[in-house]
Amino acid sequence: MMIDELENGSLGPYQDRPRTFPNMRSKAYTPWVFRVLMGINVRVLFVLLLLAFAAVFYVGASTSPIVVFVLSICIISFLFSIYLTKWVLSKDEGPPEMVQISDAIRDGAEGFFRTQYGTISKMAFLLALVILCIYLFRSTTPQQESSSLGRFTSAYITVAAFLLGALCSGIAGYVGMWVSVRANVRVSSAARRSAREALQIAVRAGGFSAMVVVGMAVIGIAILYATFYVWLEVDSPGAMKVTDLPLLLVGYGFGASFVALFAQLGGGIYTKAADVGADLVGKVEQGIPEDDPRNPAVIADLVGDNVGDCAARGADLFESIAAEIISAMILGGSMAQRCKIEDPSGFILFPLVVHSFDLVISSVGVLSIRGTRDSGAKASVEDPMAILQKGYSVTIVLAVLTFGLSTRWLLYTEQAPSAWFNFALCGLVGIITAYAFVLITKYYTDYKHEPVRTLALASSTGHGTNIIAGVSLGLESTALPVLVISVAIISAYWLGQTSGLVDETGNPTGGLFGTAVATMGMLSTAAYVLTMDMFGPIADNAGGIVEMSQQPESVREITDLLDAVGNTTKATTKGFAIGSAALASFLLFSAYMDEVATFAHEPFKQVDIAIPEVFIGGLLGSMLIFLFSAWSCSAVGRTAQEVVNEVRRQFIERPGIMDYKEKPDYGRCVAIVASASLKEMIKPGALAIVSPLAVGFLFRILGHYTGHPLLGAKVVAAMLMFATVSGILMALFLNTAGGAWDNAKKYIETGALGGKGSDCHKAAVTGDTVGDPFKDTAGPSLHVLIKMLATITLVMAPIFL
Amino acid sequence: MMIDELENGSLGPYQDRPRTFPNMRSKAYTPWVFRVLMGINVRVLFVLLLLAFAAVFYVGASTSPIVVFVLSICIISFLFSIYLTKWVLSKDEGPPEMVQISDAIRDGAEGFFRTQYGTISKMAFLLALVILCIYLFRSTTPQQESSSLGRFTSAYITVAAFLLGALCSGIAGYVGMWVSVRANVRVSSAARRSAREALQIAVRAGGFSAMVVVGMAVIGIAILYATFYVWLEVDSPGAMKVTDLPLLLVGYGFGASFVALFAQLGGGIYTKAADVGADLVGKVEQGIPEDDPRNPAVIADLVGDNVGDCAARGADLFESIAAEIISAMILGGSMAQRCKIEDPSGFILFPLVVHSFDLVISSVGVLSIRGTRDSGAKASVEDPMAILQKGYSVTIVLAVLTFGLSTRWLLYTEQAPSAWFNFALCGLVGIITAYAFVLITKYYTDYKHEPVRTLALASSTGHGTNIIAGVSLGLESTALPVLVISVAIISAYWLGQTSGLVDETGNPTGGLFGTAVATMGMLSTAAYVLTMDMFGPIADNAGGIVEMSQQPESVREITDLLDAVGNTTKATTKGFAIGSAALASFLLFSAYMDEVATFAHEPFKQVDIAIPEVFIGGLLGSMLIFLFSAWSCSAVGRTAQEVVNEVRRQFIERPGIMDYKEKPDYGRCVAIVASASLKEMIKPGALAIVSPLAVGFLFRILGHYTGHPLLGAKVVAAMLMFATVSGILMALFLNTAGGAWDNAKKYIETGALGGKGSDCHKAAVTGDTVGDPFKDTAGPSLHVLIKMLATITLVMAPIFL
Repeated sequence: MMIDELENGSLGPYQDRPRTFPNMRSKAYTPWVFRVLMGINVRVLFVLLLLAFAAVFYVGASTSPIVVFVLSICIISFLFSIYLTKWVLSKDEGPPEMVQISDAIRDGAEGFFRTQYGTISKMAFLLALVILCIYLFRSTTPQQESSSLGRFTSAYITVAAFLLGALCSGIAGYVGMWVSVRANVRVSSAARRSAREALQIAVRAGGFSAMVVVGMAVIGIAILYATFYVWLEVDSPGAMKVTDLPLLLVGYGFGASFVALFAQLGGGIYTKAADVGADLVGKVEQGIPEDDPRNPAVIADLVGDNVGDCAARGADLFESIAAEIISAMILGGSMAQRCKIEDPSGFILFPLVVHSFDLVISSVGVLSIRGTRDSGAKASVEDPMAILQKGYSVTIVLAVLTFGLSTRWLLYTEQAPSAWFNFALCGLVGIITAYAFVLITKYYTDYKHEPVRTLALASSTGHGTNIIAGVSLGLESTALPVLVISVAIISAYWLGQTSGLVDETGNPTGGLFGTAVATMGMLSTAAYVLTMDMFGPIADNAGGIVEMSQQPESVREITDLLDAVGNTTKATTKGFAIGSAALASFLLFSAYMDEVATFAHEPFKQVDIAIPEVFIGGLLGSMLIFLFSAWSCSAVGRTAQEVVNEVRRQFIERPGIMDYKEKPDYGRCVAIVASASLKEMIKPGALAIVSPLAVGFLFRILGHYTGHPLLGAKVVAAMLMFATVSGILMALFLNTAGGAWDNAKKYIETGALGGKGSDCHKAAVTGDTVGDPFKDTAGPSLHVLIKMLATITLVMAPIFL
Repeated sequence: MMIDELENGSLGPYQDRPRTFPNMRSKAYTPWVFRVLMGINVRVLFVLLLLAFAAVFYVGASTSPIVVFVLSICIISFLFSIYLTKWVLSKDEGPPEMVQISDAIRDGAEGFFRTQYGTISKMAFLLALVILCIYLFRSTTPQQESSSLGRFTSAYITVAAFLLGALCSGIAGYVGMWVSVRANVRVSSAARRSAREALQIAVRAGGFSAMVVVGMAVIGIAILYATFYVWLEVDSPGAMKVTDLPLLLVGYGFGASFVALFAQLGGGIYTKAADVGADLVGKVEQGIPEDDPRNPAVIADLVGDNVGDCAARGADLFESIAAEIISAMILGGSMAQRCKIEDPSGFILFPLVVHSFDLVISSVGVLSIRGTRDSGAKASVEDPMAILQKGYSVTIVLAVLTFGLSTRWLLYTEQAPSAWFNFALCGLVGIITAYAFVLITKYYTDYKHEPVRTLALASSTGHGTNIIAGVSLGLESTALPVLVISVAIISAYWLGQTSGLVDETGNPTGGLFGTAVATMGMLSTAAYVLTMDMFGPIADNAGGIVEMSQQPESVREITDLLDAVGNTTKATTKGFAIGSAALASFLLFSAYMDEVATFAHEPFKQVDIAIPEVFIGGLLGSMLIFLFSAWSCSAVGRTAQEVVNEVRRQFIERPGIMDYKEKPDYGRCVAIVASASLKEMIKPGALAIVSPLAVGFLFRILGHYTGHPLLGAKVVAAMLMFATVSGILMALFLNTAGGAWDNAKKYIETGALGGKGSDCHKAAVTGDTVGDPFKDTAGPSLHVLIKMLATITLVMAPIFL
């Protein structure tokens, strides 16, 4: 009945009744876990959490006091995140018209999330089965058999870690979306009162999911570590050594990156297909503003912000942190073993402690962004970017302090008394690298600087020169980050080598671990960075709700300001993510070589690209990046074309839409985008998973017949390295070009070069449209792809041998 | 006086008097060499050539009968090319209005050529000085000292080879342009009579420069080889061995690629800046057709075809063939030495013989395209593409036969009686690879196939979706060529390894030489392919002259048809060029490792990317490709913006232009483009030359302090390999995307999806504009860059050690 009414269109104002869509439930769906959690009294919840804490405490305590410390911090952060979410939810939802739009967005987002994660979980189970088979049929090493880690145990452990990683990654994504679809309307409502309050709500909502995402990555690994430690009776005579334990966690990282890849692909295609489709007809053809309620694709666009930016970025950062912690633990363990350090647990558990401190200092950073109460009306004119930056500065200063503290606590060893200081400097290198990345991204994407101004000027001579200038800008912007990364890797490696740690034969051996510590330094403010990132789509959505519910101009100005800041923070997070992906992938590559050497019972120290097959592996690896980018961009293009045709059809068939006399059918656009993006995410995702396995297996067989025993493993290694390098460059290109196009458009919209509606603006909108799939679909998917390739080769290594 | 008249504009028809430009001589400039050559009686010329033949014959005969054979074939081809040019020049130049336009184009092209090559030659002399210094101050190997190849000799040899290579590359470029600025008007004139005759003139003009380019590459190397052989008393007791001789030729390849790089950059920027500028205002804003005389940038555009496509492609192919011959000679020599083959000259001189046969069979292919005399009026409706393809088929069949013959003649050895057959199969692999590349390029760029149709359809939803679809198409199109190259490298390597040739220790050793033979197979029809390529810009120019001189519609249809075919042949040549660049670069990489090992007195067999510094070298190498592409694209964008502003200014200041009442000032556009492209070519060119040297030198010093002796050489090796891989992919992406956009536009112009003037067409024109710098500036420059990097590292190796 409702559907009929919607289809026929009642001519009253839009806010007459809630927006519902033919194919979606009108009531928000909350998984039972959350329903139960939200239903319980806070005190009961607290008691339950204490009990859980006691349980893991027992296991943790029998492992190492460091684990207990990590677990405690994580649980405190969860409590803090519950405080944050209670605080956000206590805010008012504004007038009913806002609530109705927000409900429609929530329905769309949760509906898509359920279908998408349904598909992903089916694929995850399938892959788990494949992993099980591979591990059950592989040959085990004598060392493993002796340490009671036989074929069956390692198979179950890997599969269990994989599934847990996948589940946690899914939860991380869900949490990101769950809070954003609730916070958006509250930000809109608060924007009617004060810019500062709106900012605070958005930041605290972002902070909630950041705490949960980082906390879950840390606690998941800590619990797995402790469980395996106790279960496998590690370090008891004859059993496996604690330094080998981290390799068992790789499955967790792979599960996380597997889910993150599909979440990012599906979400990215969804959000950008809707956005491009809405812009091309709405802005370019019809000349109506962004998020105008007359545009039939506007709800789909707003839903996209949540499923693409919030859910996917949550899974992405979860995976970044998990992969980086695990690779650093592996390297710490193997270094401790080489150096015969008496108690290696400090080196192994160091990354967990760094991220525990990350949770603490980021909480301080989030809390430092204060509400209206103490600053009053004067604060509302303050630049939100400056406020966020101030919080970031606080966090960074604290990070330097706590990082130094952690290195002294955990990395001090009698053998090399000054090693901890070298590693503290490595951490500083990482923190400086992160900051340099933020500055470079800002330089290339902020319209206060030369590059975007040149790009805007290129728009004045037409669509063509705008695109050429944007592509050139993006390609050029790869240079500085690569130089920074190069200097960071070399200096961290050198600091590690000169730390005084030597192996049995007296060779300095701390180089790679130094690089690992630098990566951790880079990610030591991850929770705050994620907060700033999550803030973006929430503000964007709030702006959409304000526009849709036709609020006064002054309210829109506030949300527009927040949205613009969100764009900048989003761009900088991507630079941050790609930098850490580069470092983490380099670390996982070393872990892969160790792993292959262990399996193959022979040293595997070199990947010599002068061998033709290895060179071809590299060629194929780089090609994979190009093909993956192609397929993810074209998926957006194809889906956007469907949206364009649908929106055009609606404008023709319902001419009253433009005069607010007829309602557009938002539901159809949502349905088109949802089904298309589910379909389109499969092809690039499958490519990413199947191709390294196929190439490795093929060259293993070729090597078998031509008498090269490790050929498969070497070719895959080259593939991985070349894919990493090309992937970093391609991602930098796509992200920066996209961000610059977006901001060149925004710069023109401030009135420069003819302002809104001029030919110059139209050319800039074309650039923005092209940049959308670059920066929000292909680019971020590549971050995940790089790390997924590193973890898949590690987990699937038995195939290549 | 003339300038004043031009500036004030006389209102008569355009063809009243020749177009002259303020900053250029109105009389065509011919270098004295050509003036002398063209002035002499053919018989005198013949006698002179016979005398020259006798002189080189003496040196050649004291080297090897094979050299005599090669020299004879080259001189016969030069005679044949003189016949071709006489034939072309004997054709009529058409009515005076055509001649005047053609004169203007010739003036512009020759004026730019002189300035450009003036700049390039200055840089070449500077670089020669640098090389001289490096070689004078390097340490020599005992082996070299003993073979009378001391410090001074090797310095002078390298510098002389470099300068000769640079000079020949310059002549190759000049010849390509010289004939095209003369043939274009003759093709236009012939198009008034018959399509077939026009086709024949264009093909024979292309054939002329192809013969000269290929012949000069071969004869240059043959003369250098013979001279060094006699001078250094090679193979006499105590002197250097003949198998080491080819390494002395590397300077020739570097000189060729150095000039080709700047020729391609300058020419590419020139042609596309003019084209983009002309299209953006003319086609998109004013809606006048391509090459319309009212467009002030049209002469600059037509000049660009000659300096960008003809001159630059001549230098490009010259360099491809030279680099490939030299690398194959090096590998042949080192393999012959390892296998202790008694007479290694067959293995060393094999590439020269292959290209001698190439000259013969391509001449047959060119001659197989017959004129109007025997086919009459019926032939004029035949598809020109089919005619060219028939000629190609003839050439390919002959290539298979002559290649088999050459392998039996030169690569037969008692030690491995069946090796020649394996190598013949390698050649077949190369020929098949070339054909596969042609097919793949056609699939992705011809509008008869799915991809371009999809791209055209994407234009119907706007500029944005067109660009997204084109970028995706280009990125996707890298996959199949990479797979083909991978299969080709592996199978040729395998065929070489199993050829039966073994080194002293009994290990099979023919693998790399097999790859080299495959590369030669790929290039065994190079002269015919170059003919087809040169045909394109000549036909394009002829179309421009027809349009400018306002010929009847039927004449334009004929030139349009030829132009469209030219687009396809141009795209396929690029696929061909990039495939051979990939293989040649891989070969030069092996030569580089041999060279380093010789210099460093220690084995250099591996480039291990697991070493952080080496990995960073790779990262920097890939980044170099991105930055180089960025700078060459943005150079076009910037210059095009200047053109757009100038054209817009002229349309505003001279409103009579649109009604043919006022003359546009063509000269200003020519001057703007010429000076801008000279300025803009320096930055990317300098980047390409300086960065490998800087990186190598920096890491050499770093290695010196950290105790890694060969670090600089290894880092440069990784840089080279990663740059090659990224360069291949980037060039494939840029070339294919550009070609596809161009043809999508042409497809729509056939009337599909709304036809000319529709919104869909406008979006397609945007795509075409973006594709211009991709496919004609950055893409082809990358082919040259890849090989220049390989030769520069080889020549400059002493810096890294």
